[in-house]
Amino acid sequence: MRLQHLTWQEVETYLRQRTDIIVPIGSTEQHGPNGLVGTDAICPETVAWEVGERYGVLVAPTQSLGMAQHHLAFPGTISLRPSTLIAVLRDTLLSLSRHGFTHVFFLNGHGGNIATLSAAFAEVYAERSLLDGDVRRGELNLTNNNWFAGPRVRKLAESLYGDAEGTHATASEVALSWFARPDAVKQVEMSPRLAPQGSAQCDAEEFRRRFPDGRMGSDPSLASIEHGRRFFEASVDDVWEAYRAFTGRE
Amino acid sequence: MRLQHLTWQEVETYLRQRTDIIVPIGSTEQHGPNGLVGTDAICPETVAWEVGERYGVLVAPTQSLGMAQHHLAFPGTISLRPSTLIAVLRDTLLSLSRHGFTHVFFLNGHGGNIATLSAAFAEVYAERSLLDGDVRRGELNLTNNNWFAGPRVRKLAESLYGDAEGTHATASEVALSWFARPDAVKQVEMSPRLAPQGSAQCDAEEFRRRFPDGRMGSDPSLASIEHGRRFFEASVDDVWEAYRAFTGRE
Amino acid sequence: MRLQHLTWQEVETYLRQRTDIIVPIGSTEQHGPNGLVGTDAICPETVAWEVGERYGVLVAPTQSLGMAQHHLAFPGTISLRPSTLIAVLRDTLLSLSRHGFTHVFFLNGHGGNIATLSAAFAEVYAERSLLDGDVRRGELNLTNNNWFAGPRVRKLAESLYGDAEGTHATASEVALSWFARPDAVKQVEMSPRLAPQGSAQCDAEEFRRRFPDGRMGSDPSLASIEHGRRFFEASVDDVWEAYRAFTGRE
Amino acid sequence: MRLQHLTWQEVETYLRQRTDIIVPIGSTEQHGPNGLVGTDAICPETVAWEVGERYGVLVAPTQSLGMAQHHLAFPGTISLRPSTLIAVLRDTLLSLSRHGFTHVFFLNGHGGNIATLSAAFAEVYAERSLLDGDVRRGELNLTNNNWFAGPRVRKLAESLYGDAEGTHATASEVALSWFARPDAVKQVEMSPRLAPQGSAQCDAEEFRRRFPDGRMGSDPSLASIEHGRRFFEASVDDVWEAYRAFTGRE
Amino acid sequence: MRLQHLTWQEVETYLRQRTDIIVPIGSTEQHGPNGLVGTDAICPETVAWEVGERYGVLVAPTQSLGMAQHHLAFPGTISLRPSTLIAVLRDTLLSLSRHGFTHVFFLNGHGGNIATLSAAFAEVYAERSLLDGDVRRGELNLTNNNWFAGPRVRKLAESLYGDAEGTHATASEVALSWFARPDAVKQVEMSPRLAPQGSAQCDAEEFRRRFPDGRMGSDPSLASIEHGRRFFEASVDDVWEAYRAFTGRE
Amino acid sequence: MRLQHLTWQEVETYLRQRTDIIVPIGSTEQHGPNGLVGTDAICPETVAWEVGERYGVLVAPTQSLGMAQHHLAFPGTISLRPSTLIAVLRDTLLSLSRHGFTHVFFLNGHGGNIATLSAAFAEVYAERSLLDGDVRRGELNLTNNNWFAGPRVRKLAESLYGDAEGTHATASEVALSWFARPDAVKQVEMSPRLAPQGSAQCDAEEFRRRFPDGRMGSDPSLASIEHGRRFFEASVDDVWEAYRAFTGRE
Repeated sequence: MRLQHLTWQEVETYLRQRTDIIVPIGSTEQHGPNGLVGTDAICPETVAWEVGERYGVLVAPTQSLGMAQHHLAFPGTISLRPSTLIAVLRDTLLSLSRHGFTHVFFLNGHGGNIATLSAAFAEVYAERSLLDGDVRRGELNLTNNNWFAGPRVRKLAESLYGDAEGTHATASEVALSWFARPDAVKQVEMSPRLAPQGSAQCDAEEFRRRFPDGRMGSDPSLASIEHGRRFFEASVDDVWEAYRAFTGRE
Repeated sequence: MRLQHLTWQEVETYLRQRTDIIVPIGSTEQHGPNGLVGTDAICPETVAWEVGERYGVLVAPTQSLGMAQHHLAFPGTISLRPSTLIAVLRDTLLSLSRHGFTHVFFLNGHGGNIATLSAAFAEVYAERSLLDGDVRRGELNLTNNNWFAGPRVRKLAESLYGDAEGTHATASEVALSWFARPDAVKQVEMSPRLAPQGSAQCDAEEFRRRFPDGRMGSDPSLASIEHGRRFFEASVDDVWEAYRAFTGRE
Repeated sequence: MRLQHLTWQEVETYLRQRTDIIVPIGSTEQHGPNGLVGTDAICPETVAWEVGERYGVLVAPTQSLGMAQHHLAFPGTISLRPSTLIAVLRDTLLSLSRHGFTHVFFLNGHGGNIATLSAAFAEVYAERSLLDGDVRRGELNLTNNNWFAGPRVRKLAESLYGDAEGTHATASEVALSWFARPDAVKQVEMSPRLAPQGSAQCDAEEFRRRFPDGRMGSDPSLASIEHGRRFFEASVDDVWEAYRAFTGRE
Repeated sequence: MRLQHLTWQEVETYLRQRTDIIVPIGSTEQHGPNGLVGTDAICPETVAWEVGERYGVLVAPTQSLGMAQHHLAFPGTISLRPSTLIAVLRDTLLSLSRHGFTHVFFLNGHGGNIATLSAAFAEVYAERSLLDGDVRRGELNLTNNNWFAGPRVRKLAESLYGDAEGTHATASEVALSWFARPDAVKQVEMSPRLAPQGSAQCDAEEFRRRFPDGRMGSDPSLASIEHGRRFFEASVDDVWEAYRAFTGRE
Repeated sequence: MRLQHLTWQEVETYLRQRTDIIVPIGSTEQHGPNGLVGTDAICPETVAWEVGERYGVLVAPTQSLGMAQHHLAFPGTISLRPSTLIAVLRDTLLSLSRHGFTHVFFLNGHGGNIATLSAAFAEVYAERSLLDGDVRRGELNLTNNNWFAGPRVRKLAESLYGDAEGTHATASEVALSWFARPDAVKQVEMSPRLAPQGSAQCDAEEFRRRFPDGRMGSDPSLASIEHGRRFFEASVDDVWEAYRAFTGRE
Repeated sequence: MRLQHLTWQEVETYLRQRTDIIVPIGSTEQHGPNGLVGTDAICPETVAWEVGERYGVLVAPTQSLGMAQHHLAFPGTISLRPSTLIAVLRDTLLSLSRHGFTHVFFLNGHGGNIATLSAAFAEVYAERSLLDGDVRRGELNLTNNNWFAGPRVRKLAESLYGDAEGTHATASEVALSWFARPDAVKQVEMSPRLAPQGSAQCDAEEFRRRFPDGRMGSDPSLASIEHGRRFFEASVDDVWEAYRAFTGRE
């Protein structure tokens, strides 16, 4: 159930029964020679929509822009500063909380978002916590789940790619995005086959020096649509398990 | 051509030939009893993707959250504050400008975004203009186009609905969103048939008092998928005409 | 009645009877070869003071700095960024609202302020709207009125200048400012007689390239003090009509 | 010479000869039973305009809103937060600096502005200082001068009022504002004759508890227009002396 | 070598030889019935000073306030919002970078700081990365090291406390702080012996409900000064190892 | 009594008896050829801790970073922008106020902090004052005391150094810091003996041009540890006197 496809009365009805929601969040950034600029948004969005359909959970619009500053030396990357992303998440959470949502589950597709998501949660909580103790707002539970870090997904990536999975423009995320967008599959030779490894804690110019074609430690030419289908199934199960734990629902 | 579906090398190739891009921008807000919460994002996105396909223009990810504060008393609305939206647009424009994009065409689906879009453009320009005259950055041309205000769209709405078009949750936008999402069509009786008219310049509680079911002056029960198809064609032509005038391309 | 000329007890007395106020807002920016840098503040201030005197309405101090980034390549221009102007307007509105003012009518002299004024209103409303529905503040009605766009003013400018009115450093605003400041009249030959037309959506350096002497489409050498007197009378009537409609008072 | 009354070409001519400017800054706040809400803006503006006329110095538009939070429990007060005033002053200074102004002399009428003015100067300088040492902008000298603290003004106030001068809604500022606005003179009995003394370092509600009619330690019923004339002359001489010391001009 | 104890010439001399620095960062927050409010600052500061002495590394002043919003329902806690801490770290890093420091190693004592530290690094890098590629600033390498997560420290805590170590007000940090501040040792009975476990992702009121005496899963009554001495030695070795890896120095 | 050395329960006990606290605040900035970078933090911290011990007053962690932009051209200086320091002080004060502290006494060691401290107090008060009058928070009294400006300290400096005291890197502050850190005493010849005098209202590059070795008007080679001991005693008495006046306690 996508929030975008409901009327406000349908949302009202939903809220009478349950107050949890999934917010997919990704990034718009280079993913190497055969990965799509939209990979990090497409992957969690695809999984979130399926979880929403299968289990009747509401899914908010995807936050397609994330914190991708280190990729800005590659054309196509669009990055928010952390402070901007914090403001976006704050307004989103205040909006949802106003309507009575009590459990917001971010399904994230980009490692670079994790710290800012956590800082944004703290920013929202801090506004409450700095008030006197007798000023209260409604219950608000927040969590972030990274689709790429789920146990089934990790196990599958290990079995399919081993060390060639890498840490950016990974074989697994390329596979899942191809499953979601089969018309956008690119066949590109990787050179070197395995990209260099290293830290992404640097600015954009330095990142491009360290990782000339954008990949970090991966060989995404191993990816396939069929692999993507298997990651899709693994991730839906991972996410649903985490979601139930977070919301306490069956 | 959707930016999300390209690799960074494909974007690089595009930029060698042309430096213009469309950014769809909408909102996530109530649209009355039969309109979708996602109407304002779905409409410009649908038109933008078609223009992109037909004419080979790059289309950035849709900014699905807009300035919708006045709708926050209806469940499902998610609003950014103007200051947050300005920050998002600023970072987006700095990112695009860094890569060499010189013409950014926002295709907008929400009247409530217009002022903030214009303020955001000025914020970006002001950062440049406050610097000494000899500090220069690259060319940056910005425009906002509202799909719902194009000449063909206006004429069609007038001929189909006359005064029943209204100004929020309009018959035309409901029709176009249904064309884009036929599975989400809702058949709802409107009561009263024509919603009250008035100003939306107020806060959320007051807005709901003025417009109890969320519509402003419209009877969107007149909408149909077939109408939506005609709005789609009209808008694609409107937008392409405006786009050529903006970019100076054929 | 100018707020600056009252004691706080006199303001208190006023507020017991009515809760509306006019805030003149302008800009400090070049206005071509014979227009004053203060034109955009002087014009609405002059009209507002007269409306205040004739009809007993309170007038706040003029906001003389506006959003004028595109004029910064001409000496004398002082511009606020949109984000700064939003903060100024927010604090002004919170101050007025705290005292019980319920209707704030901005009388604006600068086209470049319009979007930011609207964004500022939304920023103030959004702070309220993002709170839970049961937290309420007092009534707050806001509007912006552009003196130069009133029906009597438009008609008079058309009859006096036709196409030579232009869109910046217009003949009508130069005339009104001269009526208000007869000692500051400048007699300057225009070359070319009609300035070029175009869009002001650009940064300061580009604006100066497009409009070398600062005028946009106008021939302000047609202006005269006597014309200014007629614009003054036309505008007072335009504004008073709009003011009554806004406040619902006679 | 008021900036508002010049064309940009006249400003350009001025800048070829000298690069100094006066910026009057005040506040819009209660000034007790017989003092005007505009006192703090009217006083420095009146003195600045005279200095400008006598000595050919350019005077920018008056910043009429200042940091007046402690007066907000009295109707008519409009206050900017310090952070907002810092942003206004920053943009003003960047604008002036861009045009080549090197000496900006704020003539201030409100004690509550002093700290924020100083913080704003530091904010502007800090932006430069945090850059690498080899990035340079033009010369920028800033100072704040409080008209009410000039030596001639202090001496005159002491001789006329002694302890009844007080520290807010003082006899001297009421006198000067009456000289500037003789039509706005109010004859009000003070009760008690001398207002209580104390600290203004508190919020608005507490300030009103401490100072019930808004005065701090003063008896402004001693003021007269004739006194105001003498304060005017004293202040013009004080300011001109300070101005010459600041700019190094004769 | 503490930065606070050098003259600027001594810093200049240091910078000619090496350009790395340690910045201790902690928090001021409740640490249960026998833990000090300053625990999170005292621990990394103590280790940093020792590393500085032993190995001739410069140590900046300790940032004693961190992101501790969840502890604000316990008296004594002082928290910065994430956005404030990001601003502090940004200014600190710009200051250090201006002087030529190229490697900044944060030694952190508080889990709640980790996300905000990472977001702050990204904020600093993003300012660079959003600029055009040909605008460059100096090299800037950043890392965060959590003293409590070093391998020797983890092993020692496991051997001494096993499951009673917990995750806040842990036995190990209490021990180290006691070693650093033997006069401040508190003997308090814990009830229950093991504190409840759970998530700290919530606001302050909720945190106190979940963790009534402030501990999370720990029994810090097991701590002793002698244990603290062993943690101190273990941590100095952990940190020095990490520091060498980060700076590439021996 | 240092806040860092208490448990939260001990703070709770303190708050049942009294609600006042000292916050030492300094700066990290060059202090000339023989002054420590940490001088401005070390001095007030040393005095505050002694006052805390002698009289049982709680002392918060020292804010070691202040507003030192003008010193940034000297290695070792770390400066916050005024806007950042305002945010830090705001969060600190909201935290303390939440716990019930009603009197916060800043003990300041740096002249450059004074304006920003005052602006920060006003920022905190303004947030309250802009709310409707019937929204109230708890009592909050704030003051700033500069240790170097106390009457006993001023008299002692005058008697020991006369004009050689200067205004930055003063003999008195160097003496006090040496008393606090005897191991860090530096014996350096001053050349010229008396540093130049002038204004510090400028950016960092200009400051270094004006004051080549960082001193302003001082000869700190006159300082000694024994002098420092006398400044320490004088300051403790000055501060305690001011503290009693502020809190109304004996």
